[in-house]
Amino acid sequence: MNFQEQLKADKDLVEEALKNAFRGRTPHADIYDAMNYSLLAGGKRVRPILTLETCRLCGGDPIQALPFACAAEMIHTYSLIHDDLPCMDDDELRRGRPTNHMVYGEATAVLAGDGLLTAAFELALEGSRDLDPKWALAALDCLAHASGAAGMVGGQALDMAGEGHALTLPDVEELQRLKTGALIAAAAEMGCIVAGGGEEQRQAVRLYAEKLGLAFQIRDDVLDVTGDSAELGKPTGSDAKGEKTTFVTLKGLEECARLVEKLTAEAAEALSGFDQADFLIQLAYQLVGRTS
Amino acid sequence: MNFQEQLKADKDLVEEALKNAFRGRTPHADIYDAMNYSLLAGGKRVRPILTLETCRLCGGDPIQALPFACAAEMIHTYSLIHDDLPCMDDDELRRGRPTNHMVYGEATAVLAGDGLLTAAFELALEGSRDLDPKWALAALDCLAHASGAAGMVGGQALDMAGEGHALTLPDVEELQRLKTGALIAAAAEMGCIVAGGGEEQRQAVRLYAEKLGLAFQIRDDVLDVTGDSAELGKPTGSDAKGEKTTFVTLKGLEECARLVEKLTAEAAEALSGFDQADFLIQLAYQLVGRTS
Repeated sequence: MNFQEQLKADKDLVEEALKNAFRGRTPHADIYDAMNYSLLAGGKRVRPILTLETCRLCGGDPIQALPFACAAEMIHTYSLIHDDLPCMDDDELRRGRPTNHMVYGEATAVLAGDGLLTAAFELALEGSRDLDPKWALAALDCLAHASGAAGMVGGQALDMAGEGHALTLPDVEELQRLKTGALIAAAAEMGCIVAGGGEEQRQAVRLYAEKLGLAFQIRDDVLDVTGDSAELGKPTGSDAKGEKTTFVTLKGLEECARLVEKLTAEAAEALSGFDQADFLIQLAYQLVGRTS
Repeated sequence: MNFQEQLKADKDLVEEALKNAFRGRTPHADIYDAMNYSLLAGGKRVRPILTLETCRLCGGDPIQALPFACAAEMIHTYSLIHDDLPCMDDDELRRGRPTNHMVYGEATAVLAGDGLLTAAFELALEGSRDLDPKWALAALDCLAHASGAAGMVGGQALDMAGEGHALTLPDVEELQRLKTGALIAAAAEMGCIVAGGGEEQRQAVRLYAEKLGLAFQIRDDVLDVTGDSAELGKPTGSDAKGEKTTFVTLKGLEECARLVEKLTAEAAEALSGFDQADFLIQLAYQLVGRTS
């Protein structure tokens, strides 16, 4: 399979697993509808694909990593639902569709987020039954730590606190490391853990994902200024609206483009110790809008 | 130790562990303050005490169950923060103090809830390092399943959907089984699992906790009608305000009192196979306002 075929195969695998995640569950009011509405709204599925492919990279069976891959996507999705709430970023559009609370109301959107966050652990625990319990616990630990107040939730708190204030580059880097970087790195590391990868492999995969995550975020800030709303499926200019300090406001568009290039090369370099890293290297270049 | 001394010892153990849960963590904005504000606001600590004592009942070391005990309390606390939000029950007072969003604002309250929910798994995973990984995974599974859309979150969704509608007794029983019963039962079962209890012991402990949880909820509905706001630390009449169908509106005060008595006796009976169940039996009677 070439890169595009492999990417499609991974994405199909993830979509199918997510579609089946709540099948057979007794519905309680419309909570599963609301959870599925956001979970099955498309998106690039970067996090789960990272989990599958780092598992393969480290010699594991990607199918064993699939529940952990979907768990990372569920946590990503819940964070989008809560971030879009009126009391947070107050966004009405996400991936070209009305946001969760616009369709289901705020109360259900809060609960759908809570349900997805918890479902991530439920699913990863189900997947743990087929694994060495030690690896399963290590992967769960990685996911929990990256998602909580020392990771993604802390990053969102910093983001809210920073609105309307002038932030420095280290502030913005720290904010993004927590808000988006931590979960991306965990998604990648979990695949490696499930495959039984050693400490050196885990560190290499983390470094790759951290560089990739930062490049991806800078690219996102750039697109918020230069991109087209219809193409992105969300409003552009949202950072300016919220008076947010971004990589673009701090470094300018040109320097950001250089940074993205540098970080992507460093991500690729982090995997130099692996024989079969072609897919993940191409993925890094594709995610920042270049073919390698 | 007599019952009251044991109860105090358990409660002190839990308070100390909760106080230390986020010690040494780098603060990100005021997220840990907001999390601690609700987590350390007192309360009876019923769930963690159940975990500790069912662990002891099944011959385990309660200290090993402590992280799981605190995890259950964190999930309970996050659910209160989110339930109190303006888009949910819109409550301004909880345990005699302003609710989380009244102090920290809605955005931080949502995040504090998210942070506590995630921290529950972080903490239980930390505690898992000292356990047989199989038991640890079983306890985590129990916690996740009880907390999610098939448990507590689903119960809250039913509760929101039911406001202003006439519910039947089976509706209200199902709602409460999910909204409050599931986590109470999981808290009790986790202690048993951590102690390495067998299937029969787990079922007995679950049955005890389910009966206790329902008795406790009916008692709560009664107090919402007959209780004193200052004594309860929260507004009474809140069910009537939200036009909620409760056990009291369906069965009346007298029948509710009889039901509470019956359920408490059944809870005690569920533990008849254990030699040293005195503490848990007394706890059941104390929780519904009687000394056994």
